[in-house]
Amino acid sequence: MRKLRMGMVGGGLGSFMGGVHRKAAALDGMIELVGGAFSSTEEKSKATGRSLYLNEDRCYGSFEEMILKEKQLPLGERIDFVTIVTPNHLHFEPAKMALENGFHVVCDKPMTLTVEQAKTIESLAKETGLLFALTHNYSGNAMVKQARQMIVNGDIGDIIKVQAHYLQGWMADELDEQASIKPWRADPTKSGIGGSLADIGTHADQLIRYITAMDITEIAADLGRIGEGRTLDNDGNLLFRMENGAKGSMTISQVAVGEENDLAIRVYGTKGSIKWEQENSTRLRVQFIGKPEQIYTPDGYGIYDNIREVSRVPKGHPEGYLEAFANIYKNFGTHLYTALENKTIEKPDYPTVHDGVKGVQFIYAAVESDKNNAAWTKPADF
Amino acid sequence: MRKLRMGMVGGGLGSFMGGVHRKAAALDGMIELVGGAFSSTEEKSKATGRSLYLNEDRCYGSFEEMILKEKQLPLGERIDFVTIVTPNHLHFEPAKMALENGFHVVCDKPMTLTVEQAKTIESLAKETGLLFALTHNYSGNAMVKQARQMIVNGDIGDIIKVQAHYLQGWMADELDEQASIKPWRADPTKSGIGGSLADIGTHADQLIRYITAMDITEIAADLGRIGEGRTLDNDGNLLFRMENGAKGSMTISQVAVGEENDLAIRVYGTKGSIKWEQENSTRLRVQFIGKPEQIYTPDGYGIYDNIREVSRVPKGHPEGYLEAFANIYKNFGTHLYTALENKTIEKPDYPTVHDGVKGVQFIYAAVESDKNNAAWTKPADF
Amino acid sequence: MRKLRMGMVGGGLGSFMGGVHRKAAALDGMIELVGGAFSSTEEKSKATGRSLYLNEDRCYGSFEEMILKEKQLPLGERIDFVTIVTPNHLHFEPAKMALENGFHVVCDKPMTLTVEQAKTIESLAKETGLLFALTHNYSGNAMVKQARQMIVNGDIGDIIKVQAHYLQGWMADELDEQASIKPWRADPTKSGIGGSLADIGTHADQLIRYITAMDITEIAADLGRIGEGRTLDNDGNLLFRMENGAKGSMTISQVAVGEENDLAIRVYGTKGSIKWEQENSTRLRVQFIGKPEQIYTPDGYGIYDNIREVSRVPKGHPEGYLEAFANIYKNFGTHLYTALENKTIEKPDYPTVHDGVKGVQFIYAAVESDKNNAAWTKPADF
Amino acid sequence: MRKLRMGMVGGGLGSFMGGVHRKAAALDGMIELVGGAFSSTEEKSKATGRSLYLNEDRCYGSFEEMILKEKQLPLGERIDFVTIVTPNHLHFEPAKMALENGFHVVCDKPMTLTVEQAKTIESLAKETGLLFALTHNYSGNAMVKQARQMIVNGDIGDIIKVQAHYLQGWMADELDEQASIKPWRADPTKSGIGGSLADIGTHADQLIRYITAMDITEIAADLGRIGEGRTLDNDGNLLFRMENGAKGSMTISQVAVGEENDLAIRVYGTKGSIKWEQENSTRLRVQFIGKPEQIYTPDGYGIYDNIREVSRVPKGHPEGYLEAFANIYKNFGTHLYTALENKTIEKPDYPTVHDGVKGVQFIYAAVESDKNNAAWTKPADF
Repeated sequence: MRKLRMGMVGGGLGSFMGGVHRKAAALDGMIELVGGAFSSTEEKSKATGRSLYLNEDRCYGSFEEMILKEKQLPLGERIDFVTIVTPNHLHFEPAKMALENGFHVVCDKPMTLTVEQAKTIESLAKETGLLFALTHNYSGNAMVKQARQMIVNGDIGDIIKVQAHYLQGWMADELDEQASIKPWRADPTKSGIGGSLADIGTHADQLIRYITAMDITEIAADLGRIGEGRTLDNDGNLLFRMENGAKGSMTISQVAVGEENDLAIRVYGTKGSIKWEQENSTRLRVQFIGKPEQIYTPDGYGIYDNIREVSRVPKGHPEGYLEAFANIYKNFGTHLYTALENKTIEKPDYPTVHDGVKGVQFIYAAVESDKNNAAWTKPADF
Repeated sequence: MRKLRMGMVGGGLGSFMGGVHRKAAALDGMIELVGGAFSSTEEKSKATGRSLYLNEDRCYGSFEEMILKEKQLPLGERIDFVTIVTPNHLHFEPAKMALENGFHVVCDKPMTLTVEQAKTIESLAKETGLLFALTHNYSGNAMVKQARQMIVNGDIGDIIKVQAHYLQGWMADELDEQASIKPWRADPTKSGIGGSLADIGTHADQLIRYITAMDITEIAADLGRIGEGRTLDNDGNLLFRMENGAKGSMTISQVAVGEENDLAIRVYGTKGSIKWEQENSTRLRVQFIGKPEQIYTPDGYGIYDNIREVSRVPKGHPEGYLEAFANIYKNFGTHLYTALENKTIEKPDYPTVHDGVKGVQFIYAAVESDKNNAAWTKPADF
Repeated sequence: MRKLRMGMVGGGLGSFMGGVHRKAAALDGMIELVGGAFSSTEEKSKATGRSLYLNEDRCYGSFEEMILKEKQLPLGERIDFVTIVTPNHLHFEPAKMALENGFHVVCDKPMTLTVEQAKTIESLAKETGLLFALTHNYSGNAMVKQARQMIVNGDIGDIIKVQAHYLQGWMADELDEQASIKPWRADPTKSGIGGSLADIGTHADQLIRYITAMDITEIAADLGRIGEGRTLDNDGNLLFRMENGAKGSMTISQVAVGEENDLAIRVYGTKGSIKWEQENSTRLRVQFIGKPEQIYTPDGYGIYDNIREVSRVPKGHPEGYLEAFANIYKNFGTHLYTALENKTIEKPDYPTVHDGVKGVQFIYAAVESDKNNAAWTKPADF
Repeated sequence: MRKLRMGMVGGGLGSFMGGVHRKAAALDGMIELVGGAFSSTEEKSKATGRSLYLNEDRCYGSFEEMILKEKQLPLGERIDFVTIVTPNHLHFEPAKMALENGFHVVCDKPMTLTVEQAKTIESLAKETGLLFALTHNYSGNAMVKQARQMIVNGDIGDIIKVQAHYLQGWMADELDEQASIKPWRADPTKSGIGGSLADIGTHADQLIRYITAMDITEIAADLGRIGEGRTLDNDGNLLFRMENGAKGSMTISQVAVGEENDLAIRVYGTKGSIKWEQENSTRLRVQFIGKPEQIYTPDGYGIYDNIREVSRVPKGHPEGYLEAFANIYKNFGTHLYTALENKTIEKPDYPTVHDGVKGVQFIYAAVESDKNNAAWTKPADF
């Protein structure tokens, strides 16, 4: 056996997401970064490679070069999969080319700028049978997985109500400073038609669908564009309805002063309820009719045995963002090992190309609903 | 000087709200309960009176009798005001008759079943100049008052976003038990067209308007009626827009398993934000751009001097539901003392008949919106 | 039946504790303040009486005058009990005289300055059979009572460990300001030999004994006297051992910057544990081996039925300091009603003269231990 | 440049701490595990190596073999440092031999079983100039570092009071089950004279010294040995005094039912105070006289710029146990890079051999104090 070999697209010096993906991939000692097309020039790409102690020969000037050259290496030496950590508008082309050339893919979210692109990737993944993981990292949290399993098992009865919010405040600072640290996020040609919808709304959407194991069938969105000249949404309030008739609301913002990364979800069923907050991610608050509130913790008393195994450390030793992110890589890697042996596993537990399509549909439906004064709109229609 | 004299309508043995109003009125030693029409028969009413150590002569068989007989007593001996703690459908008649006969009024919420009734009471109060307090008790909380004052003073800038929820779970228990402890709440002829909207939604509506000092101009409501044969709403998700363009969402429920009395509000402005939760009512979480989160507490460091005076005990000594409720009575009583001296005070700090009208309009607008698939609807149109 | 009649010693205009006792006594409509010796002169006492809407004839210039004159009134008209809310050094004389003249007593803590005085009061109470309540208010909290009952019932097994702290910071402000709002607290002739020990340490001591239903048999105290020229303790760290061999630690301070009124206790048994914090008094955190943490709340799921009745309002509606304080008065009043009928109740649930003795012994033992470099010292030896 | 090369002693299949050290070392991509003496036989050691995708030639049957064989490899190929993750009684020999043969060392805590051994290691480290890191991981937390820096900078004034606790409950489960998952922990010949003192007390001791940047000068310890036949402490209450006269208390336990890993510290100064809890490790509660409580967060508003750099992810994205652990490795690795270039850095920020000596002295002093009925005892005397 050997470590899985990863080639990165994006993640050059100064990139935040590149470091996150590298640390997440490295954590469990299962995946080895062997090279990448880290930047837009070969020189910059090799500089990043040197800082990572990589062989410069495997640091390329473009993803096209990386894919073509790696393809010529023998299996076991060449990269096993491509991980794409570029800005939103630079996901589609490398994902497409990687799949077309036989490489498995890990890709940051949202998967693509348009629904059409997303469906193209989805088709390619289906046709080729290659694995595709979308890094909706929050679904990697142990307590999120416990919540999902409780709901799937019917522990809290039929779902009747869902409430989610994802609130950040960093754009308020920028409004204040008349500046932007990440200019591509405000540019529709680079981030797509969704602003906060793409950046954080898709996380909330995926978290709702993951935890409830149900689809959102229609949404009504009232979006905000706070700040002079702002064209993309940076705030939004949404109603939604789920496939079983459950109703919900979602509020998102990146101009909510003081909020750091406040993703939270509450699911109410006919027998019980669960609450989870990303900033306090090691607590799952659970209630059943007639019983006091219970606080479930990773590896703690009362959680499912298979969820216990999600934790790398014993109860009371907090795992956080990187560990949840690493769980996406770990579950993808575990699946990939079986694929390399021409086996498979029944329900691999990581977000897939299917979530990628749904995410972009969510963005399109929300923007369309907002244009129509928050009229009910179906993501599946896009 | 003497204590203010209160006559109660409703609140017989076994009533919950009667005890709450009596304790709240008694807390500051300013108001004395001298009698009441506690129940539907004279006998029951006197039994309640005995349990409260009252003079049985002042315990009446009906509110009509109380109002007419008390009116014949000289000022200073007769009751100064009527407090109405009956179920929703029994607010209008005693409130109307009290005002028509020169008695000031304290009334539980929602003020009346219909907008028409509410406007009748509003007109009567205006014409007579009598005082009218509506017991939206949560606006009596010290930290709610601090939040309002900060917002009015512009401390957090222009309001851009408001999120509120009011979640209870006790009706889920009842669904489970196929029984109901408070049958009038499920009966439209007794509770009006709103179920949870009336019971808790009006509290959330008033809290939003009180804290932001702004009106809600339109709402889009998606209501739920969980449980077989349920005709009144017991769950709801709402979008709303405020007079300055701020947007918000509200979610309410009485079938949210495990929730006790989870009323909470977050207000985001261009410079800062505030968060308050009723179940943790002595903490106001405040954030300003560039500063760590700050936790304001009653009588604690950093709060406004006049807010400090709202507390009866020093910092760290929790006040709760009854104390906030008592603040409505205290502020009403303070106003009433000035009225008895033919003086007045500029902005008496308690919810009034005006809030009563707005509350019923909120219910009507939400029900109408829900009928129209959550179409935007203006409370002021009702 | 009639309300119980209370006469107050102390609590003149400007007094904080007077207001607390009056509100607590008034809350349940069972006790009526009819008069008092509120201040050191008749004039001031009557001024207080007027502000409280009292009959000035019942407002006296001294506690001696009050006791002697009230004694001449017929039972039912005269006061039923004396409540003593003066500074520490003014508890003994009025308590003694009240008991000697047939009046039941409610008294603030610590009961007296010296152990000798405390034992004198204890003897008098035993001899006369009169009721005596000491207002260790925190034992009035619903969740404290739930904790005690769980421990007494053996729910958490044998107690093996207790940790308590009581931390305030207001004296740090005063150090800073070179001033003191309550000068008698720093004067040994007026507050006794204990500073923070008397003020807050006795609360922690009583809370430990109340919740565990066990005595503290020996303590080792390392006290601090922070600030120039400070002679009385304002900080302390203590080890203690309990009658069953359980061990514990206690830390107290009034110079702990930022702490408001942070009284907290944790009790660990062989089967479970409980945690309670006064500033978050409506949550009792309970753990049993093999089960997730459970959060008990007043009137919430899972608590004992008789504890449910301690709450005046339904779950989720916070009660706090005044309500807990009022529970001392309510339970004393309930007992007093039976005493007036020459009946009694088996285990009246309020702190008594016995707690008063133990509290002063605790102070003496701690001061003695500290003098001997934190040597183990037995409160019962004093 | 190249990655630093690590050889592990201990950490075979089934070992918990081995995995922790490997993940922590891998996280930042700076350190490469190249081999180890993972188990007591060559066969088992190679099996572990295979599971980690290592070259079997570098997997040895004993630490002696590893050290001698690696020493023969050229610098750059041979391991740069040894990391020791064996049970307590197996730290001394490999640490000693590694230092004697020119290898830098990372070692789990407590450093050795006896003070004598600890001083031997300390002398060797001094003589050889080799680097030695002791993995007191909690001092790697960003908020712990913020607290230390605030205190060192005088932000909260002179320290007057410290309170710490470290509570776990897992041994209570074992008492219940009449079994032990880690038998060496209960065996004095393998864990030394301290039970919980060694396991968790040394963490609390080091955390206090790290955050306050002061020594503990004397302690008074009252230890508990809960459970039949228990010879080593599994519970303890301690008083302590610090070099500047500040006083404190510490309570530790491994039989505190329900506690997961509840390490917490509060430090009170003359101007402010700080509070930190390991289970909620991304919040540092800070108070200054006259200001509301402030909540500092990693990378959040108001923290020192150099502390901001401790975080690998932006504010609101929780880091936990492994990240803090990784900071020990990162700071050790950074120091080691400079050492490899014959440079050094002024104050490397990781626990050293000096902390190792102090930790064992703390254990010895506590056990001695307990033997003498909690008499004051000086760690430095051992």
